[in-house]
Amino acid sequence: MFKRFFTTNSIRMSKRALVFLAEGAEEMETVITVDTLRRANIDVTLAGLADDEQVLCSRNVKIVPDVPLETVKSENFDAVIVPGGLKGAEACATSSLVGEILRRHYEANKLVAAICAGPTCLFAHRLAFGKSITSYPSFREKLGANYIYKEDRVVQDGNIITSQGPGTSFEFALKIVEYLEGSDKAKSLIEPMRLKL
Amino acid sequence: MFKRFFTTNSIRMSKRALVFLAEGAEEMETVITVDTLRRANIDVTLAGLADDEQVLCSRNVKIVPDVPLETVKSENFDAVIVPGGLKGAEACATSSLVGEILRRHYEANKLVAAICAGPTCLFAHRLAFGKSITSYPSFREKLGANYIYKEDRVVQDGNIITSQGPGTSFEFALKIVEYLEGSDKAKSLIEPMRLKL
Repeated sequence: MFKRFFTTNSIRMSKRALVFLAEGAEEMETVITVDTLRRANIDVTLAGLADDEQVLCSRNVKIVPDVPLETVKSENFDAVIVPGGLKGAEACATSSLVGEILRRHYEANKLVAAICAGPTCLFAHRLAFGKSITSYPSFREKLGANYIYKEDRVVQDGNIITSQGPGTSFEFALKIVEYLEGSDKAKSLIEPMRLKL
Repeated sequence: MFKRFFTTNSIRMSKRALVFLAEGAEEMETVITVDTLRRANIDVTLAGLADDEQVLCSRNVKIVPDVPLETVKSENFDAVIVPGGLKGAEACATSSLVGEILRRHYEANKLVAAICAGPTCLFAHRLAFGKSITSYPSFREKLGANYIYKEDRVVQDGNIITSQGPGTSFEFALKIVEYLEGSDKAKSLIEPMRLKL
């Protein structure tokens, strides 16, 4: 723990990330992102939209959030992240609290990241229009009018990172690590996870 | 649901898989396996070694098992699966109940699968000695004397499937799907998950 917080002659605080967790979230996208960021020593808060009770994800895995979103709504993070899963992303899209948190972080030039159905939540909150993004392919039409839609597996445009689905989750998470902690840190995670990119 | 259980003129039962969940399990390996198998319409039971309370996984994601292992210990599955995570695999290695379940299924020629630290659990229960396996690389020495140790990302030898780590979890899960449901079913999952192999 000492090493994590102190470097020579300076105090180094962990970067902080907030991940939204709503019923119907895609559990692989959620867990791969949280786990990979924690392997990079990023301080991740998995926040339940409803409360801190267990959340039924899209393939019936039950995940317990760290806190209810309500309790961290005024805190500032280095990154805020929207996983996919159609129903989970819809819950984020219709939550004014999620909208406020996303807008505040986006306007403070903090990272806003979304994967799969997650980018539809940016659209619903009228955020980052005109930026280059990607998403699960079925949302291309919905997003194409307000964004520069790309077919790449992960897209970064300034402080927006988007990605396509469960199978791009590792690349999505590593891009977030690269953004927050640099490419050396991101690269250092690949071999220990036995990841092939 | 109709389509899942009935095909033309015949009743088709879902294949059943049991995944062990113990404190310290690697959450990506656990969730990628469960989710991918469920996408293949395999009936997956995520069973808690201790009880049905939330389980703290290796990177502090909290997952709630479907049932306590005790309640399904006499049931028969088409596959029994040990995720990694050092502490989680150790719990499976020292559980005589897990050992009994693994042996019963192995001897009935049902699939036994393990990933990352999971294969050390086969070793601890003296199961499938002489078979070709792989694991997280750090267990090579421990396993090398009793198994034919391979460096491949996923290894199948008869009814034993093993794999290396979080980053090989999709390939591990797809190999299990292929074993239970055929290669066409496994292949059909790749593009919808946006997976690149």
